Amino acid sequence: MKRAIALSLGLLLAGCASTGGNSIASAPVAPGKPATPATALQYLYGSAEAEIAVRAVNVRIADYVEERVKQRPQDSVILAPGARIDAPRFEPCSDKPFAAVFDADETLIWNLGATRYMAERGIAFDPKIWDSWEKTGAGAARAMPGTAEMVNALRAVGVTVVANSNRLAANAAGSEATLRAAGLGDFKHGETLFLAGDDAGGSSKDGRRAAIASKYCVIAMAGDQLGDFSQQFNEKTLSPEARIALATSPAASALWNQGWFLFPNPVYGPWDRLGWDDLFPSDTHWEPK
Amino acid sequence: MKRAIALSLGLLLAGCASTGGNSIASAPVAPGKPATPATALQYLYGSAEAEIAVRAVNVRIADYVEERVKQRPQDSVILAPGARIDAPRFEPCSDKPFAAVFDADETLIWNLGATRYMAERGIAFDPKIWDSWEKTGAGAARAMPGTAEMVNALRAVGVTVVANSNRLAANAAGSEATLRAAGLGDFKHGETLFLAGDDAGGSSKDGRRAAIASKYCVIAMAGDQLGDFSQQFNEKTLSPEARIALATSPAASALWNQGWFLFPNPVYGPWDRLGWDDLFPSDTHWEPK
Repeated sequence: MKRAIALSLGLLLAGCASTGGNSIASAPVAPGKPATPATALQYLYGSAEAEIAVRAVNVRIADYVEERVKQRPQDSVILAPGARIDAPRFEPCSDKPFAAVFDADETLIWNLGATRYMAERGIAFDPKIWDSWEKTGAGAARAMPGTAEMVNALRAVGVTVVANSNRLAANAAGSEATLRAAGLGDFKHGETLFLAGDDAGGSSKDGRRAAIASKYCVIAMAGDQLGDFSQQFNEKTLSPEARIALATSPAASALWNQGWFLFPNPVYGPWDRLGWDDLFPSDTHWEPK
Repeated sequence: MKRAIALSLGLLLAGCASTGGNSIASAPVAPGKPATPATALQYLYGSAEAEIAVRAVNVRIADYVEERVKQRPQDSVILAPGARIDAPRFEPCSDKPFAAVFDADETLIWNLGATRYMAERGIAFDPKIWDSWEKTGAGAARAMPGTAEMVNALRAVGVTVVANSNRLAANAAGSEATLRAAGLGDFKHGETLFLAGDDAGGSSKDGRRAAIASKYCVIAMAGDQLGDFSQQFNEKTLSPEARIALATSPAASALWNQGWFLFPNPVYGPWDRLGWDDLFPSDTHWEPK
């Protein structure tokens, strides 16, 4: 059996520097099928608790968008080129049609097929398997809880639903088929589906966001990682503490649940290199007495 | 080094039947300190993404409560004794003072001290260590992001903040000290702190909820597990699918984010016995082509 390749799903999907390896499977990785799925998998894909959390985000997006289309906003929720999160300027809406922009993986769909395949084999992440998944996964991914209803509600009030994913442009047909088979309707590459390889930005979604905002008044953005909102969150010089500080700065805080919407995903993400000292500061160290 | 005892944190804190064992540490449990914390730990305790999600729930609670105190609600959000979630009746408010009821662990505080101690040693959960933690953990737990601000906002509008925890009544002094040291102010056992052993209900919080609702008009309830809202969610006859169906039924859906508030916790929970087939239905099985 193939051992885990030292790349994380976070690397591919978020474009973050990463050499961590326990994104999908439990660590330490053991050959053979673990008796129990890792807790992150159990929680996200199996629990009523996560189902409620995901549904709540979808309900909030639909409520917010339905409210916003009644007043024509002046600006998109997409940062203007060069604007920083802590001193934000946004793309103007003018008279452009409305859109909402979503990451795809673990934002519109749960990648159950590839996740099970890798996790049962103790594979943290394998880009070759993932490439095959992008091409052939249609039918084995699922719309997340409440997502089909949310997408339908947005379209019903005239909002175009756009996906901006780090799946590869070369696999566009497979990703279109996957979203359609999940019950989320038609996404068309270059029109409502933007992918890595569409421009020279690599895994940064900033350029694709700018392209979308040039055509649409974007009233909502959603993702499971901060790179789904601004590439500034993925800058390599940003320490974990500084990243949290930036994400909870007044300017960013004003956007969460008010134009920017974050789905829970404890299974993989750009945080997958965090170590013991990042999670447990020394003043929380404790021993039984 | 002591090996993991086959009990999960979910069992103690949620009172669910459970023999799963990978609640805190990664599975398979290995002796010695894993190189990397499990993804669930990295996400919850280290990521900006989880920080945003937790803060969003706290902001929502404060906004909701501030709005509710302006109109005196007719009913508490606590189910009347014997009432079922799918046909709910609620405790009347009459002229009782306002309160909000919170679970403690991973709802008001993150248990960093005990979690680090067990996870670094590959211990899934050890009730003796946890008992010592309840007694002596003050200072090594942290208020969750935005929780001190939320608690202060509630108290500022005259709402009593009550904790209803499955920590033990015998360890009340330690838990009072832990909440105080985390910056959450004073909780007093029997008045604003309700614990396992306060009544004959064991780990069911229903009896304690009824006791609280007899004294207070409870306008908000929050937790990280469904047992923090009704023991009906913990009935052993409830399959995972039926539990999700109950939690997303129209009556329950009307309460989420409208009186009942759920915090993300992928580290431990009553879902920790879910197996591969629970997460990945056969029609999502897939293999690389």
